[in-house]
Amino acid sequence: MEEDSQYLLQKHAPRHQSCLIRGESHSSHEVDGHDLFICGIIVVNDRCVIMKLFTVGPVACYPEVLEVMGHQMYSHRSKEYFALHYETVRLLQDFISTKNEIFLFSSTGTGFMEASVRNCVRKKILCCINGSFGERFAEVAEANGVSVVKLAPPLGEPISALDVDEMLSKSPDIEAVALTHNETSVGLINPLKELVASVKKHDRLVFVDAVSSMGGTEIEVDKLDIDVCFSSSQKCFGVPPGLGIGSVSEKAMNLSATASNKGWYFDFKVWEEDQKKGRGTPVTPAIPQIAGLNTALKMIERNGGRKWYFDLYKDRNQKIRRGIEKHGLSTFPRRGSESPTVNCINAPEGVEGGAIYEKMREKEFELAEGYGPLKKKTFRIGNMGYIEMGDIDLMLDALGSVISSL
Amino acid sequence: MEEDSQYLLQKHAPRHQSCLIRGESHSSHEVDGHDLFICGIIVVNDRCVIMKLFTVGPVACYPEVLEVMGHQMYSHRSKEYFALHYETVRLLQDFISTKNEIFLFSSTGTGFMEASVRNCVRKKILCCINGSFGERFAEVAEANGVSVVKLAPPLGEPISALDVDEMLSKSPDIEAVALTHNETSVGLINPLKELVASVKKHDRLVFVDAVSSMGGTEIEVDKLDIDVCFSSSQKCFGVPPGLGIGSVSEKAMNLSATASNKGWYFDFKVWEEDQKKGRGTPVTPAIPQIAGLNTALKMIERNGGRKWYFDLYKDRNQKIRRGIEKHGLSTFPRRGSESPTVNCINAPEGVEGGAIYEKMREKEFELAEGYGPLKKKTFRIGNMGYIEMGDIDLMLDALGSVISSL
Repeated sequence: MEEDSQYLLQKHAPRHQSCLIRGESHSSHEVDGHDLFICGIIVVNDRCVIMKLFTVGPVACYPEVLEVMGHQMYSHRSKEYFALHYETVRLLQDFISTKNEIFLFSSTGTGFMEASVRNCVRKKILCCINGSFGERFAEVAEANGVSVVKLAPPLGEPISALDVDEMLSKSPDIEAVALTHNETSVGLINPLKELVASVKKHDRLVFVDAVSSMGGTEIEVDKLDIDVCFSSSQKCFGVPPGLGIGSVSEKAMNLSATASNKGWYFDFKVWEEDQKKGRGTPVTPAIPQIAGLNTALKMIERNGGRKWYFDLYKDRNQKIRRGIEKHGLSTFPRRGSESPTVNCINAPEGVEGGAIYEKMREKEFELAEGYGPLKKKTFRIGNMGYIEMGDIDLMLDALGSVISSL
Repeated sequence: MEEDSQYLLQKHAPRHQSCLIRGESHSSHEVDGHDLFICGIIVVNDRCVIMKLFTVGPVACYPEVLEVMGHQMYSHRSKEYFALHYETVRLLQDFISTKNEIFLFSSTGTGFMEASVRNCVRKKILCCINGSFGERFAEVAEANGVSVVKLAPPLGEPISALDVDEMLSKSPDIEAVALTHNETSVGLINPLKELVASVKKHDRLVFVDAVSSMGGTEIEVDKLDIDVCFSSSQKCFGVPPGLGIGSVSEKAMNLSATASNKGWYFDFKVWEEDQKKGRGTPVTPAIPQIAGLNTALKMIERNGGRKWYFDLYKDRNQKIRRGIEKHGLSTFPRRGSESPTVNCINAPEGVEGGAIYEKMREKEFELAEGYGPLKKKTFRIGNMGYIEMGDIDLMLDALGSVISSL
């Protein structure tokens, strides 16, 4: 990525910036006689402003991804689509080091939570919970008629591989373990390798919610032996939302083959059949997002591959973390478990996280509010998608002046 | 829509057209040092060609829709997203004349098949089948553990309201009836008003698959009293795929409230809660497609509203139908039941539909092959999305020469 944020200015500014807005609505405006929808742009003092995004998803997308998002559509039964489809699957397989089938669901990552449970679990699952998205996995499992055992350390603490080992020893009827690799809501990353090893020691299935980690840090699916490893387009790959991606092991696939009551939309066997027969997907695929993901994966390849991308995430996050500390701020999770993709930051004494979020918006930076029980006490700075180093400096400067003003 | 197909030329030609292609792949090319994905464009004799699309979904999208598809992303928990979300819901409610809640699913239309069955049917459903998508509804219902009664007239015949009436009289345990308004696979439209009236006479639920009709012909949801009426972004609205849209009646919602085993992803009550509390959607929404749909709906409003759009579909289809007849070709369904949005055309004696499809591709027109049991005997010409009158003339001329050459 040689381009900097000038790209956004070029893309939007000619028509959007510094333009006076008619009407009351802050979402849709008539400008120069065109009725247009403002995206990534807000209205401050009657002026259109391009926000610099440090969101936690959907995140800022790469310019070349946005370009293909705007391409004309075509049939998903054409050879052009099939070429796109199978190339994207292969690129993803390489990226997460797996020979497992990878499905491109017309859904979000949560679709894979539902799918994992419905296809592979008959009665009981262990859900490891570090925050709101671990809670969601448990909620989804319960809604799908499965009995849920919860392992939920205090907020900010990672899951312990020893605890998982103990629980599985005690409960031989637990068929599968659900892990949130990176918990977006509290900015915490779990020790994936150790956790998966604990599960595999007991020969149970493991489902990994890698929504905010896949792309931002290495995951070796086959080496670890992960049964379902899923993510979404709108996080580390810097692609718009609307696409769920996930790998499914042979063991998980065999369980799906004999599952009853698994529904149709997320039936792994239905997806496998079309994929293996060269027909792509059983339902219409989200072509723009798939083309966007394809573009992002090739951009990564061109720049040096996965390692280059993971290093980029490390460098950016180091810069963000140092800046935070310089401003006297601390991150919420236990030291050593801080996420490389989402920083969850404690608001200073007496200040609400939401106030910092709003003040940063006024300075044209879109961060993220705290989530769930941490909504008031924290705010979050995303390190996913299209972020330039220079913009991190600007964001940290703005954050410094917001903190001292409050 | 004042623009003509020049737009596509302007959009793609500077970089894509008449350029020599390196490498073997016909899907991804290096042109001028850029690795780019070719969409709506194929390679003929080493030359990039912009296809004119008469597909049956995904269909050609409006230029202004494609423009917003390429806009930068932003948080789905921001006030900018909420403004887009609720405005789009309101525009859709107006469009299909309903006060029912409309959900914007991060899925395709098939997600609403699964949702209808899981939320509202306990034991038995009547599926009315005119072709592959009626079959799919039945398959989805069975996969969700419901007993399916089928009403399937010979291919090409519409569903008879009298038959529905009779079946419901005989079977008081049928809780709901699934109808395909417009069967894309055979190019047939059913008499919706009469069919829904038959169902309502017996006070049963009615689910309408309006995937290839909503937008192309009038549907008055509240007047007819349709319980679930769903469609997708990639058909008559001329928006890329990846978004399911559907209205849900109070009666259907009440059934969902007491349903067990309904899963989470498509739980109407989960979606209702977030929508009513001002939080938009429970999972990350497909923001680009929602922005695209919003743009399409406003374009329709600006041009004179629904009536203008339905008239446009009528005029275009009349032109296509006349052209077909002029070439000595006939449409597959019973006379009077021909779809206004998809023409399913009998291939001439001794010619396979697929041959016509391929020959038309060589002439730079992308039609659609026949589907299911009609794959060899027919081909299809879509009348959905962004189609210019002038392009219909060109397509019909090309079709004439293909027919006489075969």
